Amino acid sequence: MARILPLLAYFVFVFSFLAAASGQELPSWNDTPTKAAIVSFVEKVTKQGSPEFVKPADRIAVFDNDGTLWSEQPMYNQLAFAIDRVKAMAPEHPEWKTKEPFKSLLAGDPEGIAAAGTPGLLKLIATTHAGMTAEAFATTVTDWLNTATHPKFNRSYLECVYQPQIELLRYLRANGFKTFIVSGGGIDFMRPWTQMIYGIPPDQVVGSSAKAKYEIRNGNPVIVKLPKIDFIDDKAGKPVGIYKFIGKRPILAFGNSDGDFEMLEYVTAGSGARLGLILHHDDAEREYSYDRATRFGKLARGLDEAPIHGWILVSMKSDWASIFPHK
Amino acid sequence: MARILPLLAYFVFVFSFLAAASGQELPSWNDTPTKAAIVSFVEKVTKQGSPEFVKPADRIAVFDNDGTLWSEQPMYNQLAFAIDRVKAMAPEHPEWKTKEPFKSLLAGDPEGIAAAGTPGLLKLIATTHAGMTAEAFATTVTDWLNTATHPKFNRSYLECVYQPQIELLRYLRANGFKTFIVSGGGIDFMRPWTQMIYGIPPDQVVGSSAKAKYEIRNGNPVIVKLPKIDFIDDKAGKPVGIYKFIGKRPILAFGNSDGDFEMLEYVTAGSGARLGLILHHDDAEREYSYDRATRFGKLARGLDEAPIHGWILVSMKSDWASIFPHK
Repeated sequence: MARILPLLAYFVFVFSFLAAASGQELPSWNDTPTKAAIVSFVEKVTKQGSPEFVKPADRIAVFDNDGTLWSEQPMYNQLAFAIDRVKAMAPEHPEWKTKEPFKSLLAGDPEGIAAAGTPGLLKLIATTHAGMTAEAFATTVTDWLNTATHPKFNRSYLECVYQPQIELLRYLRANGFKTFIVSGGGIDFMRPWTQMIYGIPPDQVVGSSAKAKYEIRNGNPVIVKLPKIDFIDDKAGKPVGIYKFIGKRPILAFGNSDGDFEMLEYVTAGSGARLGLILHHDDAEREYSYDRATRFGKLARGLDEAPIHGWILVSMKSDWASIFPHK
Repeated sequence: MARILPLLAYFVFVFSFLAAASGQELPSWNDTPTKAAIVSFVEKVTKQGSPEFVKPADRIAVFDNDGTLWSEQPMYNQLAFAIDRVKAMAPEHPEWKTKEPFKSLLAGDPEGIAAAGTPGLLKLIATTHAGMTAEAFATTVTDWLNTATHPKFNRSYLECVYQPQIELLRYLRANGFKTFIVSGGGIDFMRPWTQMIYGIPPDQVVGSSAKAKYEIRNGNPVIVKLPKIDFIDDKAGKPVGIYKFIGKRPILAFGNSDGDFEMLEYVTAGSGARLGLILHHDDAEREYSYDRATRFGKLARGLDEAPIHGWILVSMKSDWASIFPHK
């Protein structure tokens, strides 16, 4: 956790300082119509007596993770983790040299890797880590995050989170919202660090998962990961994940790809005030520029239908004053 | 909700009054070693600088529901609900007259009903309510709770919750704990009312569940219940449910039957200060007296092994000054 703790301390310091200095709650957001729409929504649902007032217990906000709260290019961070894990475990598995998807992973073949998709990635991690306890897996994730570096930004993956979103999460919580992650990514890959980085505790993280069992191992009761997918929290699985884990229809959803379409649709179709937001990656200079043609985080239907549903397209380039936390 | 709202207002009033009047936070608990042990545990994990201090994010407390937070005799309340539902739906299903478990249910045969067990009950509800939206099912539950009456206590089932436990939940939350239900009962049967009665929001309710799917019905995005069990949150399923939904090992567990054994074992085996509690139903006069020989909520192994694990047996008869909220 050596790299994580100073980062956390830094966040806390920067927030206190900026909030005090500027008097604004979203300093990394430019003063655009997007920011105004977010602030207006929060003000109307929190104002006592307003016709659109929402009581605190119903102020639920859901955020996708990959591409919404942190970068998902040049590949999902969890895929980079999986590749490193397969490489580390390869000496014990000579058969992987000729067996897919291991062969593509070990050869670094992007087409072969991308072809497996999210379910393939989750299955790969489930298979290779089966038999491990949940606690040991969490340690593996933390160790990797403490050493791996993003290939473009040359910083820890945990420093490739979006500063404007961290401010938005805090702003929502300060206004009585309960903030959740609803991600296609593996739940066990997120839970070890979401509290520290996003202020979101493990029980407010919804994601894809493998099955698990309870057993007494060497006299200790533990949870053991099994080589079988339990739930894929993507596309039409996201509203189901919300129902399973949250049990209530949120009033705000923030996504970035067509994997978030049904979540946005489900959330914004509810009665009363609703807010749907889609982060558009249009900033090739500071991050990446992609939508319809990409291996990871494709956005096509959402781009076409956002106006019909009243969803706001958030432009990374023009709506965000900064992208990542300062180092 | 006509019967629920006044009850809630009553709870709030009584708490404020009693807390102010007596200066005690657990007025419905007698001053016994059990109460002292609970207060001592909370004080040591919340005291800054104490060797057993636990930071707020790790103060997770899990409670079973049936027989721990509300009565489970003469049968699980959810079973009474299921029987009433089957009766209401029977005219449309003449085949049920000869088909088990419907035949036993409609005939009111306790042996036949009990033989189905918890999985049978959950399967029955999943099957009979398949195709219904999650929201419509929640309305059905609320409607039933607003009209049904407990056969022994002649009061709403929501008034058959245990006043000492409601105080304990509040006391824990006042000390920075996050309180969860971890029940073998159906998650959809609990979520419509746990916030109002226990102060526990839907996302902090872990329970058994049926599978569900997302669909657009008459132009509205909805969650539809499917006729298939997804997860049984009982026995060794409880630690798995904790891992799935909470993602962190709690430090306090409160149960009452052998269905809670593994949950207590998992929770109290963690490092640092831990507290395991088992409610012993030994009060035939004010509630019920049962343990080893009962159709619902059998307690045998827990009774035998509580001393080995250091779990506290809470005597309903001697530790509780009152059982239910005053009407």
